[in-house]
Amino acid sequence: MRVALGLEYDGAHFCGWQSQPGGCGVQDALERELARMACHPVRVIAAGRTDTGVHALAQVVHFETTTERPLNAWVRGVNAGLPSSVRVLWAQQVDDEFHARFSARQRYYQYILFDQAVAPAILAGKVGWFHQSLDVDAMAEAAAHLIGEHDFSAFRAAECQAKSPIRTLQQAEVRRAGQAILFEFSGNAFLHHQVRNMVGALVYVGKGSQPPAFIQQLLQSHDRRLAPPTFSPDGLYLSGVGYESRWGLPDTRRYVHLSLA
Amino acid sequence: MRVALGLEYDGAHFCGWQSQPGGCGVQDALERELARMACHPVRVIAAGRTDTGVHALAQVVHFETTTERPLNAWVRGVNAGLPSSVRVLWAQQVDDEFHARFSARQRYYQYILFDQAVAPAILAGKVGWFHQSLDVDAMAEAAAHLIGEHDFSAFRAAECQAKSPIRTLQQAEVRRAGQAILFEFSGNAFLHHQVRNMVGALVYVGKGSQPPAFIQQLLQSHDRRLAPPTFSPDGLYLSGVGYESRWGLPDTRRYVHLSLA
Repeated sequence: MRVALGLEYDGAHFCGWQSQPGGCGVQDALERELARMACHPVRVIAAGRTDTGVHALAQVVHFETTTERPLNAWVRGVNAGLPSSVRVLWAQQVDDEFHARFSARQRYYQYILFDQAVAPAILAGKVGWFHQSLDVDAMAEAAAHLIGEHDFSAFRAAECQAKSPIRTLQQAEVRRAGQAILFEFSGNAFLHHQVRNMVGALVYVGKGSQPPAFIQQLLQSHDRRLAPPTFSPDGLYLSGVGYESRWGLPDTRRYVHLSLA
Repeated sequence: MRVALGLEYDGAHFCGWQSQPGGCGVQDALERELARMACHPVRVIAAGRTDTGVHALAQVVHFETTTERPLNAWVRGVNAGLPSSVRVLWAQQVDDEFHARFSARQRYYQYILFDQAVAPAILAGKVGWFHQSLDVDAMAEAAAHLIGEHDFSAFRAAECQAKSPIRTLQQAEVRRAGQAILFEFSGNAFLHHQVRNMVGALVYVGKGSQPPAFIQQLLQSHDRRLAPPTFSPDGLYLSGVGYESRWGLPDTRRYVHLSLA
């Protein structure tokens, strides 16, 4: 039997999604508890691997089990044993052909940035921070250049293992939300560090170092060395994964709003 | 010279505001850094003591120093040495008659509660949680009974050292804000645990165990033993302190909005 789960987690409490020898990945914590409920070892596959410090509002995973349990056991039972920084939101039996990663058609990310003189204290680790006010209109104009099919080599981490640097972005928006700046991205898939690299470049435009067309120049350069540094993981949220409706999953998209002014 | 500071802190990282022998109070962290900047021991007085786990959006404190520094040194210089969970927002020189606690005319509190089946993971420690949906209209009606001058003995901690249990509430509101429930209270002063005890009693009404008039019965009983238990500190924020305009302080009121749905 194949089961899909929706997950929320605080990435600051883990060394990323992926299982690590020391057991510090979100995957390790989840597999331990699923194995306890299933009474056999469990391996989970996630829609997207998140880096250390990156949060998930709606990660989707699947696993195989031979153990019959009411679906609620995979939610409440597993949550009872997990650390408080990760929670199973829902569980659903799925067709054996469903694959959390390969069946995913769309990934959604949000980034929350506070642009203010003093660093956030209460929301430290939950939001990115830039020490001066940014020009959101310029950033929104710059972000529009990212929409569509592009070679994203200039926004790709050196360690990225994807075969192709071509990706298609459906959404790349920047706007004020309270005193925060909210970035929303969606695309079929993302390269390693792509969102944090795009945010870094947009901040560069927002502080006035470059005009909005800078983003287009970076895209055309295909050269990571010309682009500004990778931005902090603190404000990055995997906010949903899109699947075809035939898999019958719950709506996996969620929204975060954090404001303090 | 007397200096007033505005502070933001995450109460989960400290054992409350007040200085402790082990040095785990917010006051300890702040006094250490102020002493380093002032080159002499510093004692700070706060507008209100917050319990372990209670956050401050806008705590106000004052201290005495013989050291002349530009005001910005008391912000940026002190912030450079503080842990990331506490930040000085502003510094202002004040008249020697100003007293952060005794000059305060009004205290403002917010409480953020998530009423949902699954406990919050990303916002664990930042919001209170109740495992089922609550009737916000009933809670709002119940809260209105708290407004005005009352004997709040039924909402007072056993260890409370105040001479009188009489307090005056100007505001006691409950409403939906996204998927969160937001409580807002303001009054001249509050008894120990008063806000958390009021929230606990309002949740009791919200889940349907008692009608809104229950709050009036509790007030009239003057009996803490009849009231529901103290609610969690996790979602409680000291959100401002009101002073007369003659002290010339910046607007000390701030607002938090945390939503994730």
